[in-house]
Amino acid sequence: MSRVVPVSGFPEWAPEERVVERHVIETLRQVFALHGFAEIETRAIEPLARLRGDSDAAKEIYALRRVLADADDADSGMGLHFDLTVPFARYVEEFSGKLAFPFRRYQIQKVWRGERPQEGRFREFYQADIDIVARETLPAHLEVEVATVVARALGRLPIPPVRIHVNDRRLVEAFYRGVGVADVPAALRSIDKLAKIGRDGVAAELRAAGVPDAAVAACLDLAAIASPDASFADEVRALGARHGVPSDALEEGIASLVALVDGINAAVPGVARADLRIARGLDYYTGAVYETFLEGHEDLGSICSGGRYDSLVTIGGSTLPGVGISVGVTRLVSRILSAGLASATRGVPSAVLVAVSDEGARRASEAVAAALRARGIPCEVAPNAAKFGKQIQHADRRGIPFVWFPGEGGDEVKDIRSGEQVAADAASWEPPADDLWPRVERR
Amino acid sequence: MSRVVPVSGFPEWAPEERVVERHVIETLRQVFALHGFAEIETRAIEPLARLRGDSDAAKEIYALRRVLADADDADSGMGLHFDLTVPFARYVEEFSGKLAFPFRRYQIQKVWRGERPQEGRFREFYQADIDIVARETLPAHLEVEVATVVARALGRLPIPPVRIHVNDRRLVEAFYRGVGVADVPAALRSIDKLAKIGRDGVAAELRAAGVPDAAVAACLDLAAIASPDASFADEVRALGARHGVPSDALEEGIASLVALVDGINAAVPGVARADLRIARGLDYYTGAVYETFLEGHEDLGSICSGGRYDSLVTIGGSTLPGVGISVGVTRLVSRILSAGLASATRGVPSAVLVAVSDEGARRASEAVAAALRARGIPCEVAPNAAKFGKQIQHADRRGIPFVWFPGEGGDEVKDIRSGEQVAADAASWEPPADDLWPRVERR
Repeated sequence: MSRVVPVSGFPEWAPEERVVERHVIETLRQVFALHGFAEIETRAIEPLARLRGDSDAAKEIYALRRVLADADDADSGMGLHFDLTVPFARYVEEFSGKLAFPFRRYQIQKVWRGERPQEGRFREFYQADIDIVARETLPAHLEVEVATVVARALGRLPIPPVRIHVNDRRLVEAFYRGVGVADVPAALRSIDKLAKIGRDGVAAELRAAGVPDAAVAACLDLAAIASPDASFADEVRALGARHGVPSDALEEGIASLVALVDGINAAVPGVARADLRIARGLDYYTGAVYETFLEGHEDLGSICSGGRYDSLVTIGGSTLPGVGISVGVTRLVSRILSAGLASATRGVPSAVLVAVSDEGARRASEAVAAALRARGIPCEVAPNAAKFGKQIQHADRRGIPFVWFPGEGGDEVKDIRSGEQVAADAASWEPPADDLWPRVERR
Repeated sequence: MSRVVPVSGFPEWAPEERVVERHVIETLRQVFALHGFAEIETRAIEPLARLRGDSDAAKEIYALRRVLADADDADSGMGLHFDLTVPFARYVEEFSGKLAFPFRRYQIQKVWRGERPQEGRFREFYQADIDIVARETLPAHLEVEVATVVARALGRLPIPPVRIHVNDRRLVEAFYRGVGVADVPAALRSIDKLAKIGRDGVAAELRAAGVPDAAVAACLDLAAIASPDASFADEVRALGARHGVPSDALEEGIASLVALVDGINAAVPGVARADLRIARGLDYYTGAVYETFLEGHEDLGSICSGGRYDSLVTIGGSTLPGVGISVGVTRLVSRILSAGLASATRGVPSAVLVAVSDEGARRASEAVAAALRARGIPCEVAPNAAKFGKQIQHADRRGIPFVWFPGEGGDEVKDIRSGEQVAADAASWEPPADDLWPRVERR
């Protein structure tokens, strides 16, 4: 077998890095569950037809083929999911009889995309999604809630502050139609590229798609409006009036976006910002849309995106409205690690290495370990009855803070960082709380 | 889109079933970590050449192809891993510079096999593995330890008692060579089919492979020996003597198996059984081998298997010895659910639904929820300001035990199971500990 090398786009972590990833995932999970979101997992695969959907957008899907299968059965017609939204919509349909609506779920799993890997973009990565799907109407306060929940969750992570940029498709669509854009979804996909290709690039795309010059200018002016509160509304009204957009349609969208930005900021002050540039490339959004940026790390792109949709989930011929948001866990973890924002106190769970004086006494050391574990203290027994100096060195190399010496006259435990060694009883000794399990510390 | 149907072999769980699965996974994780095993995760894919390995055995691997990729890049040469041992061996090689040996790791991930699905066999399933890999020699007590750790972990699950059947390749190989079996790995693969095709079937296979009649009988007689302690040793000695097996080679293997069964039973009384029938189909085992059966559910097959290997991991031209064992998590969970061995107290995390008297008062209800969550009580706010009866019904349908009524003169909370309603303060009220989070109860 040739020497192994990492596979581009498929990140893997050393044990102490995995502690950081687990911390991020468990923190998100805890906050989601505290807000009443139930956990589900879906299978990794979906039928290719469902993955491709109705969209023309070329998606880089990994399709599956069974090797060594009967020839007629080799192509499974299945591919790996590229997000958790498509599988969730299918799951709701399949399990609808067992779910109570509005159904609130979180889902933290890996997804796969065949894209060309680059900084912050992976081919295999964790997403953490929350969604709420209603049976009939989906109240607007749920569009506020999903953003609030992720704001609270992200606020507990060892990362700089985040800013959730919000927009509303109802507002944008009313405006676009009002200024004479015929194909609104196509125009939104162009506007979505503003950060990538700039104003001139977007303008050229829009003109090429047949959008009249005045409308191109109007769309770009709308996209330039942003405010940390409801003050965007007057600017939108003025711009709409200048371009002859009927105010009644526009007012409904404005009211939605005002409620959204005010609602989120009421729950988590300062986290939300109305930003009329936020378009989201996906056709299925119908109301609130979100993108989230990490202060000082805007180059990462959005670390958490989503929106409201009204026709993604179908049960018995009728569509169910929903709203959801997805955290790019691997993108975050990768940046936490590469920028040194946080690190684990150790990579090994053990707080204690129980030394072994000679192989005949191994069972006595095992008994000490069992007594410590019974009280929830992670530990391991030395693999060999080497000289104590070597056993201490072994603990040190593994990052284990304490070494325990069983003795006939009584046990002793040494903090190998300070060198302090004290008498101890396995039935009652406790390590300092900070040493019990590996922790993740901001740097 | 046509009506969705489950995909055979790719199990998915309803939210209350996922609570059971999470409980199983978290219990294993906790016990593994208490014993000092560090967690890693590996990417889902490996190069096809590595997955196929040197074995002739046809493995049903899922290969990946990028859809819509540039033609020259479409076949990735990669497949989904079918276990966690092959990726682990590769990970140790790749990360060897960052690991301290003996390296102890656990890994709980999904794996994929293209096999024909049947009861207890899936195409996508969770495995939970622990392994210990040493840089130089791997002491025999580590072969005892991995079995002990899974025995303790399985003992905490809501399942009947398990029995770990152990054997030792060193004993079996010495015996086989002693009776004149030329191709020991092939003979082991035949013996491994005893439960499936019976004595006669195995005998026919061995004879067809050129094993002499007397040796066939000797191998089958060896496979019939089993004991809950070291008493198998005398039977093996007697059988070996009858067939002229040199006793010195045999004694080494006997000593290993005696130490294994006695060692495990010393730590977890009664859990291990020497069973000379246990062969394991895989060529790479070189010492202890394990299979585990669930009392009363032997039809499931082994729920936890593994063994010692000496040449799976290669670093810089030298091979590293290791020992590992793998729990079939999905096989267990599927049986827990289908046989009703345990169930979750509810599928939703929320202990409390905070009612909303009218939409104008929603923020007051949100404030109650925030106060409860700040003290770690999972809750959600009613989606609509419907009549209180409807809101209670909503909680009932979701399995939420308590409904909270904010009031100007003071709040009240109702246990909707008993109907009892009492005055309560969001800053101090606690649900009974059993109601705080969903729990898994044996039935």
